[in-house]
Amino acid sequence: MIAEIIAIGSELLTPFRQDTNSLFLTARLNELGVNVAFKDVVGDTREHLVSVARTALTRSDILIFMGGLGPTEDDLTRECVAEALGLKLRRDPDLVAELYARFAARRITMPENNAQQADVLDGAEVIRNPRGSAPAQWLEGTHDGLARIIILLPGPPWELEPLFKDEFIPRLQKVLPKAHIAARVLKIAMLGESVVDAKAAPIYKQYPDVQTTILAGAGEVQFHLKATADDQEDAEDRVERLAMALEECFQDAVFSSHGETLEEIVALYLQMRGHTIAVAESCTGGLLAQRLTAVSGSSRYFLGGAVVYSNDLKTLFCGVPPLMIAEHGAVSAQVARALAEGIQYETGSSIGVGITGIAGPTGGTEEKPVGLVYVAVVGKAWEPEVVERKFMGDRERIRHWASQQALDMIRRKLI
Amino acid sequence: MIAEIIAIGSELLTPFRQDTNSLFLTARLNELGVNVAFKDVVGDTREHLVSVARTALTRSDILIFMGGLGPTEDDLTRECVAEALGLKLRRDPDLVAELYARFAARRITMPENNAQQADVLDGAEVIRNPRGSAPAQWLEGTHDGLARIIILLPGPPWELEPLFKDEFIPRLQKVLPKAHIAARVLKIAMLGESVVDAKAAPIYKQYPDVQTTILAGAGEVQFHLKATADDQEDAEDRVERLAMALEECFQDAVFSSHGETLEEIVALYLQMRGHTIAVAESCTGGLLAQRLTAVSGSSRYFLGGAVVYSNDLKTLFCGVPPLMIAEHGAVSAQVARALAEGIQYETGSSIGVGITGIAGPTGGTEEKPVGLVYVAVVGKAWEPEVVERKFMGDRERIRHWASQQALDMIRRKLI
Repeated sequence: MIAEIIAIGSELLTPFRQDTNSLFLTARLNELGVNVAFKDVVGDTREHLVSVARTALTRSDILIFMGGLGPTEDDLTRECVAEALGLKLRRDPDLVAELYARFAARRITMPENNAQQADVLDGAEVIRNPRGSAPAQWLEGTHDGLARIIILLPGPPWELEPLFKDEFIPRLQKVLPKAHIAARVLKIAMLGESVVDAKAAPIYKQYPDVQTTILAGAGEVQFHLKATADDQEDAEDRVERLAMALEECFQDAVFSSHGETLEEIVALYLQMRGHTIAVAESCTGGLLAQRLTAVSGSSRYFLGGAVVYSNDLKTLFCGVPPLMIAEHGAVSAQVARALAEGIQYETGSSIGVGITGIAGPTGGTEEKPVGLVYVAVVGKAWEPEVVERKFMGDRERIRHWASQQALDMIRRKLI
Repeated sequence: MIAEIIAIGSELLTPFRQDTNSLFLTARLNELGVNVAFKDVVGDTREHLVSVARTALTRSDILIFMGGLGPTEDDLTRECVAEALGLKLRRDPDLVAELYARFAARRITMPENNAQQADVLDGAEVIRNPRGSAPAQWLEGTHDGLARIIILLPGPPWELEPLFKDEFIPRLQKVLPKAHIAARVLKIAMLGESVVDAKAAPIYKQYPDVQTTILAGAGEVQFHLKATADDQEDAEDRVERLAMALEECFQDAVFSSHGETLEEIVALYLQMRGHTIAVAESCTGGLLAQRLTAVSGSSRYFLGGAVVYSNDLKTLFCGVPPLMIAEHGAVSAQVARALAEGIQYETGSSIGVGITGIAGPTGGTEEKPVGLVYVAVVGKAWEPEVVERKFMGDRERIRHWASQQALDMIRRKLI
């Protein structure tokens, strides 16, 4: 069984908009044991849309059309799919009545054109869309004697996603062979993709029955593991064995084994250990505070932070001695530690964090190049730790790496 | 002339990866006067790839294949395109020699398989790829008597983008009719998409010769204007007239007329007027500081900020009287203003900003619901301003709206 996802709308053929629904649909289809073999994007042009629908019917078992179900002349999905299938459209009288009622409730006369939203592929089941005016459709049909499942969905994600979850997954489960699929996500902090892959490849290659996808960002590498088997326990078991082998290899560099973000993990540990935290940031400019407070409920452990860009503020908010800045420079291990200790002292938090560095692209020197960052973490229960790092990339990437470094140091103190 | 963009790679059919090259290619093709009519994504499967290539040949004038040019068995683009076109592949001896030399320079014996990277479509021009081992190809061919331009590009963006700009745009310009296209981007702050569209639609509908695309985010609506004409002056003129009409309609809600971000515009004005700024944030948790410091060179005007999550820190860093918090609550106009005045006083900045609110999803009450935000801006040269807003959406969206509100208030003070 293979699926084809067809996104319809001329705006998706501009440089500004992109289909993202297909990522959501692919994840859900994979969970049902269905692979996506083709994705297409086509504009609101009759001839083009019929061409895409015809081609898809020849090669895919499940066809999902998204968009083009609105009331305007540009909304051609219904009639083009009908044409490709050689089916008639019937105007559903109940749907017409509902459309008129919708408009009447708002004291507006419905434009005649809107009635086309009540057109249904002959033999299709209409599925009400509580979040919009365009209903979805489900058709178990045939093409040249081959069984085909045809799904029409509205384009907006807030309509498409709940509709697909609530209405289409149960219908697909009924007609598809039962799939036994297990999945796991492991996340690793502060190692480069090539280093991680060099260590991991000899391991995951021993598990050819587990599909392994590696994704890398600034300061984070993710393993997405997936296995299909004849029963669920077997699938779980396969994924589990590879996950354990990877965890053994990377030890405490693995910060998440079920997909949590680094800030969520840090939040969890801070609450579990009864800590409070405050941060003093220079080059990250508030990014660390923003990430720590992106987790709902963070006021329970996050007291606050200081963004100390100028030297005066480093002294004012964190008591960094001006002489120390003069002697070592604002970007130094000494100042990072003084920031961490100062913010801890000022706020009375149990953990203090200090970050100073050069995010670039300007401001670097031979001795202190762009990307040089010092991160300090101090706490009542342990020795202060200060690390020096040299990150690569542009301003945004260097700042993200630096905040990731800080979060990972906090995590390691708490595990 | 219509183009079809075909992305090749099984990883692009997972829930984790997405083709983004096509956005870059679409922008460049549009500049040449070429519209993209179809985009396809297909995996590394011979039969599927040939199917996509065959279909594309029947309906599009320019076919751009991306990816699948590497040295492995999964890299099938060359042979599948050749099969669809009914052409032979010839192994280019110069390319083979270059591949061997590449490996020899690294003291590695080249695996036999790698020689397939030297396979060239019969009649195609080979275009060297200085950033990778897979060369690109350019073919002016025919299919069923119709002229077709076939382009093969490597998948990684850092290889594809410079290759396309340097090598393929000049070749396309030679064969395409000269296009005269002008484009402008207008950005509007703090108005909803529906409000903006209701006001703008009667205007842009008077300019049917200008293509208008509206994009909306939290606290920002963008107009992308594009016009094609017989000469460049005419195209510029059309875009300019619509841009002026829109600017007249939205007045000072337009913050950018050439695509700059709101933080870049604020940075520009702060420097132009010789101001310095400091911010005190509660619910945005450092986001405003982070956005202000995302602009390189921000240390010239950004002194620093305080992220004051706890009430104690509001008092400690910004001198907010505990009695004021007790009387009005931490989320109040009074406290927002006290934060702005406090951070201005403490840091000696010429502008101070205070934000307090409820980002949710928890913490809301009937009187002070999730989304309620107070933003205050104070400065030496004007009356303090405090606004109350109720933003919709999730935590991330509410925090973004709040930071956008603050940036827009600063901008309005300075224009």
